[in-house]
Amino acid sequence: MTQTTRAPINTADAAHTLEWLRRFQRVRSASETLCAPLETEDYMVQSMADVSPPKWHLAHVSWFFEAFILTPYLKDYQTPDPAYDFLFNSYYETHGTPFPRHLRGTISRPTVKQVYQFRAHIDQEMERLLSAPPPEHLDEIIDRLEIGLHHEQQHQELLVMDIRHILSCNPLHPVYRDDIRQTLLANAEQAPTAHDDNAPVDNDPVNNEPRWHRYAAGVRQIGADYPTESAFDHDGQGFVFDSETPRHRQYVAEFELADRPVTNAEFIKFIEDGGYSRTELWLSDGWHLIHQTGWQAPEYWQRVDGRWHTMSLGGLVPVDLNAPVCHVSFYEADAYARWAGARLPTEAEWETAAEDQPTDGHFVEDEVLQPQASAGARRQGPQQLYGDVWEWTGSAFLPYPGFTPLEGSLGEYNGKFMSGQMVLRGGCCATPGDHIRASYRNFFPPQARWAFSGIRLARDI
Amino acid sequence: MTQTTRAPINTADAAHTLEWLRRFQRVRSASETLCAPLETEDYMVQSMADVSPPKWHLAHVSWFFEAFILTPYLKDYQTPDPAYDFLFNSYYETHGTPFPRHLRGTISRPTVKQVYQFRAHIDQEMERLLSAPPPEHLDEIIDRLEIGLHHEQQHQELLVMDIRHILSCNPLHPVYRDDIRQTLLANAEQAPTAHDDNAPVDNDPVNNEPRWHRYAAGVRQIGADYPTESAFDHDGQGFVFDSETPRHRQYVAEFELADRPVTNAEFIKFIEDGGYSRTELWLSDGWHLIHQTGWQAPEYWQRVDGRWHTMSLGGLVPVDLNAPVCHVSFYEADAYARWAGARLPTEAEWETAAEDQPTDGHFVEDEVLQPQASAGARRQGPQQLYGDVWEWTGSAFLPYPGFTPLEGSLGEYNGKFMSGQMVLRGGCCATPGDHIRASYRNFFPPQARWAFSGIRLARDI
Amino acid sequence: MTQTTRAPINTADAAHTLEWLRRFQRVRSASETLCAPLETEDYMVQSMADVSPPKWHLAHVSWFFEAFILTPYLKDYQTPDPAYDFLFNSYYETHGTPFPRHLRGTISRPTVKQVYQFRAHIDQEMERLLSAPPPEHLDEIIDRLEIGLHHEQQHQELLVMDIRHILSCNPLHPVYRDDIRQTLLANAEQAPTAHDDNAPVDNDPVNNEPRWHRYAAGVRQIGADYPTESAFDHDGQGFVFDSETPRHRQYVAEFELADRPVTNAEFIKFIEDGGYSRTELWLSDGWHLIHQTGWQAPEYWQRVDGRWHTMSLGGLVPVDLNAPVCHVSFYEADAYARWAGARLPTEAEWETAAEDQPTDGHFVEDEVLQPQASAGARRQGPQQLYGDVWEWTGSAFLPYPGFTPLEGSLGEYNGKFMSGQMVLRGGCCATPGDHIRASYRNFFPPQARWAFSGIRLARDI
Amino acid sequence: MTQTTRAPINTADAAHTLEWLRRFQRVRSASETLCAPLETEDYMVQSMADVSPPKWHLAHVSWFFEAFILTPYLKDYQTPDPAYDFLFNSYYETHGTPFPRHLRGTISRPTVKQVYQFRAHIDQEMERLLSAPPPEHLDEIIDRLEIGLHHEQQHQELLVMDIRHILSCNPLHPVYRDDIRQTLLANAEQAPTAHDDNAPVDNDPVNNEPRWHRYAAGVRQIGADYPTESAFDHDGQGFVFDSETPRHRQYVAEFELADRPVTNAEFIKFIEDGGYSRTELWLSDGWHLIHQTGWQAPEYWQRVDGRWHTMSLGGLVPVDLNAPVCHVSFYEADAYARWAGARLPTEAEWETAAEDQPTDGHFVEDEVLQPQASAGARRQGPQQLYGDVWEWTGSAFLPYPGFTPLEGSLGEYNGKFMSGQMVLRGGCCATPGDHIRASYRNFFPPQARWAFSGIRLARDI
Repeated sequence: MTQTTRAPINTADAAHTLEWLRRFQRVRSASETLCAPLETEDYMVQSMADVSPPKWHLAHVSWFFEAFILTPYLKDYQTPDPAYDFLFNSYYETHGTPFPRHLRGTISRPTVKQVYQFRAHIDQEMERLLSAPPPEHLDEIIDRLEIGLHHEQQHQELLVMDIRHILSCNPLHPVYRDDIRQTLLANAEQAPTAHDDNAPVDNDPVNNEPRWHRYAAGVRQIGADYPTESAFDHDGQGFVFDSETPRHRQYVAEFELADRPVTNAEFIKFIEDGGYSRTELWLSDGWHLIHQTGWQAPEYWQRVDGRWHTMSLGGLVPVDLNAPVCHVSFYEADAYARWAGARLPTEAEWETAAEDQPTDGHFVEDEVLQPQASAGARRQGPQQLYGDVWEWTGSAFLPYPGFTPLEGSLGEYNGKFMSGQMVLRGGCCATPGDHIRASYRNFFPPQARWAFSGIRLARDI
Repeated sequence: MTQTTRAPINTADAAHTLEWLRRFQRVRSASETLCAPLETEDYMVQSMADVSPPKWHLAHVSWFFEAFILTPYLKDYQTPDPAYDFLFNSYYETHGTPFPRHLRGTISRPTVKQVYQFRAHIDQEMERLLSAPPPEHLDEIIDRLEIGLHHEQQHQELLVMDIRHILSCNPLHPVYRDDIRQTLLANAEQAPTAHDDNAPVDNDPVNNEPRWHRYAAGVRQIGADYPTESAFDHDGQGFVFDSETPRHRQYVAEFELADRPVTNAEFIKFIEDGGYSRTELWLSDGWHLIHQTGWQAPEYWQRVDGRWHTMSLGGLVPVDLNAPVCHVSFYEADAYARWAGARLPTEAEWETAAEDQPTDGHFVEDEVLQPQASAGARRQGPQQLYGDVWEWTGSAFLPYPGFTPLEGSLGEYNGKFMSGQMVLRGGCCATPGDHIRASYRNFFPPQARWAFSGIRLARDI
Repeated sequence: MTQTTRAPINTADAAHTLEWLRRFQRVRSASETLCAPLETEDYMVQSMADVSPPKWHLAHVSWFFEAFILTPYLKDYQTPDPAYDFLFNSYYETHGTPFPRHLRGTISRPTVKQVYQFRAHIDQEMERLLSAPPPEHLDEIIDRLEIGLHHEQQHQELLVMDIRHILSCNPLHPVYRDDIRQTLLANAEQAPTAHDDNAPVDNDPVNNEPRWHRYAAGVRQIGADYPTESAFDHDGQGFVFDSETPRHRQYVAEFELADRPVTNAEFIKFIEDGGYSRTELWLSDGWHLIHQTGWQAPEYWQRVDGRWHTMSLGGLVPVDLNAPVCHVSFYEADAYARWAGARLPTEAEWETAAEDQPTDGHFVEDEVLQPQASAGARRQGPQQLYGDVWEWTGSAFLPYPGFTPLEGSLGEYNGKFMSGQMVLRGGCCATPGDHIRASYRNFFPPQARWAFSGIRLARDI
Repeated sequence: MTQTTRAPINTADAAHTLEWLRRFQRVRSASETLCAPLETEDYMVQSMADVSPPKWHLAHVSWFFEAFILTPYLKDYQTPDPAYDFLFNSYYETHGTPFPRHLRGTISRPTVKQVYQFRAHIDQEMERLLSAPPPEHLDEIIDRLEIGLHHEQQHQELLVMDIRHILSCNPLHPVYRDDIRQTLLANAEQAPTAHDDNAPVDNDPVNNEPRWHRYAAGVRQIGADYPTESAFDHDGQGFVFDSETPRHRQYVAEFELADRPVTNAEFIKFIEDGGYSRTELWLSDGWHLIHQTGWQAPEYWQRVDGRWHTMSLGGLVPVDLNAPVCHVSFYEADAYARWAGARLPTEAEWETAAEDQPTDGHFVEDEVLQPQASAGARRQGPQQLYGDVWEWTGSAFLPYPGFTPLEGSLGEYNGKFMSGQMVLRGGCCATPGDHIRASYRNFFPPQARWAFSGIRLARDI
């Protein structure tokens, strides 16, 4: 990120910058839309250490623009409160000591209203900056703006995850949006119940084996490079995080990949076959974990009148047997795969399969916020690689050969988490549809279940 | 609590019942007044496991009337939500399994507004009940109503304690009420600073030794009996908790009691004399505790520009050197007493001294919510036994000889906590003035600091 | 402990000192006798944080003489290793920072053999000192020697407790002494099994109600004073710990005391009556504790073929129904008493009853190391107040009015533990018979179960 | 492992079997040699949860032969005690529930002597079996025997690691073997101290930069296959663990590898450059770990008189500046590499470099049990890839493509640990020299420090 002296911004640049401003406004607005159904009280809750209060998310993504763009690049920028720089820093240790994560739910001030005022302040100042950007920093500003927008989109997904967790803890079973409830009830109604002998073969979630796609062995190109055009000029479609770079070669042996994610019906068979009590199916850490936690089913599941239900964003609804299983840990995904005589794909295998596939699953824009069965006739190639559920891979989140993190505090974005986590691929029903791509590497610790994480099987030939 | 059959309620009883209703309304209203300065978000916070969100307090004290009066005694009573009976039960295990205490801050629904609606519902139904009480249960209803009102008053004090803790955790240093801030700043201004050589001797908080009152040895009557008149007839002035009963004899040896609580100025001398690092001053548990916690001063204290400040309900203000020290644990009180060549009084000693004293300290009605120096010329006898700070005694909270807890679930009110706690006496600046009496036994674990707990010294002759 | 200048030691003093030396040798020898049945490996085990390895006990009691007598009073005294002063200091913080307690089991050196050499060294040096004591320190030496011997006797009891715990953790069920096993098997054989309808009434452990002794109300003298004669002159019979002093008045209301401890048969009835699952019987802390620990019976008990067994020092043997129940926590004792419609005695009540009773229970010298049923016809007055089981009282371990701890590091012996513990009285089957007296105050936290702790009931009139 | 019916064992097989018996005896004897310098007490210690008492190691490796060979294949085999099958099972859940790992130090019986008797019993019975093996199971017996021997060799290394930890915790600084002490003192003497300006360039541990070896990009063969000849026939040289299989292709990009491990002198420069306090050098988990633990140097290091010492098996000795740094966690290795402008190698890179190198470092047979500087002139190629220190790689311990664990309980040997661990390569000074090979994959959690783990740098071109 070397700086060059530049002449005053020219017309083409100005037009381009305004396009960025409009994109900024769209992304910012989407975060607020997601929070619209919340009560003020919901904004405050940290229902477990991994969850952040929605209020905090809204402030933190705004702080990101303040800390990395407005403070360094906007002349005379004034923060509403210097303490925000401490309160809303997530984990940028080189920027300053962050407020302790597990206490985020104890901070009632600034209030929700004040956080929205902070957002409005940031929006206004960003508009001021982008209306007359300093030409000599234009490239960096756009680079950071682009990261900031992808960052806010990541937090939109986290908002959905966290809101679900927050409401699911409540014994009153609150409903986030009633239209979601109606959709999910209808879905569950349509799906045949388990062991429905009259179900048509093609639509039988229990007995319908996945089909397998075969991929030849060979040296593959994996990952992505930064766009070669200048950051300022590119249209944002080529954006990648540092952790996806550089594009590099990997030898991938011959393998097969299931044409669809594992369904709830299939996972129930695993449960009914004693999957949670058969030690030979589990990694050692997973075996100890399920004994410590008492897990006997995916997160949010409970039995009501003999039928599995899930506490969704539409409240407590019956599990849709056709839909992909969701909210399982890596350990459960791995144990399921072993039970099924298969394994999880590596991230290179997944990317090999996904590279030329359309992103046609369900995303946040579908507004159901729950993985759904693939609709209609199956087209050629694996279905739902994108959307619906993040797919656990068997790969640890480690740097690619030649990886170099971003400079400065933004280098903490991904690189320092390359330890103790597993990669997930493909996005989910809470991901913005334009935020996903074949090379995107999501990551969570193997015990995490509150992401929309599911299972796709692979196997050796 | 034996039940007798009764004729329809007579005129005198009806008048009396309406008096109780008005008292009910006064107490209920006081709780809401205390919460008036809060933002919706403040109502949600559980800043440590001991603290309950203000919203929960408001709902719990209402549940108490529902569970123990309306449900058993009001025909056709309908709860707004059956889940409240689980959510707002604090610890009555014989009534049902309570919602886990440490998760109270994670429940955003019912909202604050709904909790106020719950309160209004309870108020309305209590009015319905008291307007036409079933004569055969009138005695029990009034008995339980009286407990319920004292219970709500206890929670008013807890509200003040918890609100202070909630706001104190916030790096923005929010102010609960600005008039409190003005009073505290003025108080701190008037007090001479430590080591002020020009301070008049009588008003010198640092060098002014307490005066000692001597009490002769003898068999004393300690505790209280339930009022002998029927519960229904009495005027409520004679109310006592079961833990204060029965009145019984104790031999109290000759002792001396300080005429006032230990001041902030005196406690600062203890700190400056290395009190927190001298192992010989401490009980073993206390010594380990201060190493584990890192305590070096009372709760809420911090040094700003070389001067001790406290995070009060008026925000961060300088410590008033003349005022009683507050928010110390039993261990700190005990260590201070040892350092001062004295000891803490037993509860029998305290009650002996307090029995004939007026309740003339600062209470919640004074609306400062911070202990203050005794005003004006000292009258005969120890000052400020009541109000300002709860005074740690050297007595464990144990049953009095002949103690019998209340019957039924209300028997869990006090009795089951008679283990691992120490007795405090006299009420504090957050206690309703009509809620205190000589025989009142408050109790906290020895490590607790968030109560308005202070120190009064005693010594052997 | 003021020091006076003295002439060279005279003949009478010298004779007296040699008597003390012989007593020293007897006590020292008794510790080693207790350890004789151990394997070298047993000496190393710390089976829980409360337990110390037998090797550590043997070294620590020797260090006590080194630290408090030899180092200050024996000219040219040389320690075998300066590190012992750190390793074998238990909790005397004013003496130096002790080695962390929970790591005592990780120290393999000094070896057992070296610890015995350390003991021999101390014995030899103590003999050297006592053969020619410095007259000017004779009083202090004898004072401290006496404490040191009582200290070692306390550790003899701890050795028995700890050895039992150490061996009980071992799945091989090792037997400490086979003669104990034979005695316990015979005892269990003689006792009628529960619900034995043919058992003679007088010997029926299940249906035989305790008899009650009544004590009149009055001001009692409780505790003990230090002997008035000089410490050096007295015969050691009058020894008391500082925590037992001073003798003082307490008003004790009329009460009744059971004539014997609660038996195993009676405690089994409590278990079978659902005692461990009835919340109304328990203190709040106890209720949470038994849920956390899963306790359903006294420590060391397990069911084998439908019959309760205990892992004793004679290995796994059937529970003797006639014997006093043992290894229960304060919470269990308290819950049992509530279930039985009684309560635990206060320590003043216990002492009132015990003051004029003979010490005729079973002690360590009986070499069974397990509480036993009272033998033969019952004499007048309560039985087995001394020996067999320590009896939990309802009194917290707090300073007596006028209590002053010893000066210097020895002041840490008892005083700093006067918080969070309950008093037990009377000694047990592992206590040296000459180590107990009416005023003796033992103390443990309410959750402790590895002491030989049992239950005696009291009740109000 | 299909079974085939066979004729009685023929002469050639019998001869071969006896060779295996002699090999068995050699390995068994080596374990006992390692324990010979221990005191009985040392055999008992579990100085942290990861450490097992030496006694337990000796018994566990014997149990392995009992559980997997003698019980299934030796007619009339009798165990000395059926409880051993529970006590000495480490983690084979499909075999039975193992004794809790963290309590291994609390089991004093069987005694050390009895454990040696158990060993003798196993040795004798193995001899009985191998003298007349059942021909139809000969293949399986030899397969399992071979695993059992490699298993015992792994525990020999663990014994060295654990003995070091056990003795290092002891404030008396015990010396395991005095000849080791003499060697280490001599080594430390010869090495120039840090910043020795007169040191010859070639032998300057501080300023001597590593040389880099370059490796071309390409598809490499990584891992190993099981020997193709029958297990019974092969000579044991081809043994591999299941986790090393199958041999498979990986694309390895061009890279450079340092010619030697990082030295103590270099690591001290990292420390002195503030390495432990510069957040930008650390993975997030590592940064939190060093704050929680307070680590400021490798395990076992302490400063004595201004010079770094290490608590070695020769007691406390000065750190040898020329020797490879050892007992660092993955996090420290990773932070060091980042500080040095390099990175850790992947396991594929390491294996590429190591494949054709001789195993010429220091191993357990060298009897120093501490990494040492490479002796003499450097030959072509990277030095000390084998021996001295295990080298942390940047690769997570995951299954190779096509990996299939062994059948039955032995399948738990490696496969279930493929989560949360990092791979180390090359063996160390405590590894038996014939137990290492290029494809060998050791693994530890990233926070582990008690293995002899060091650092070798790699870098991209």
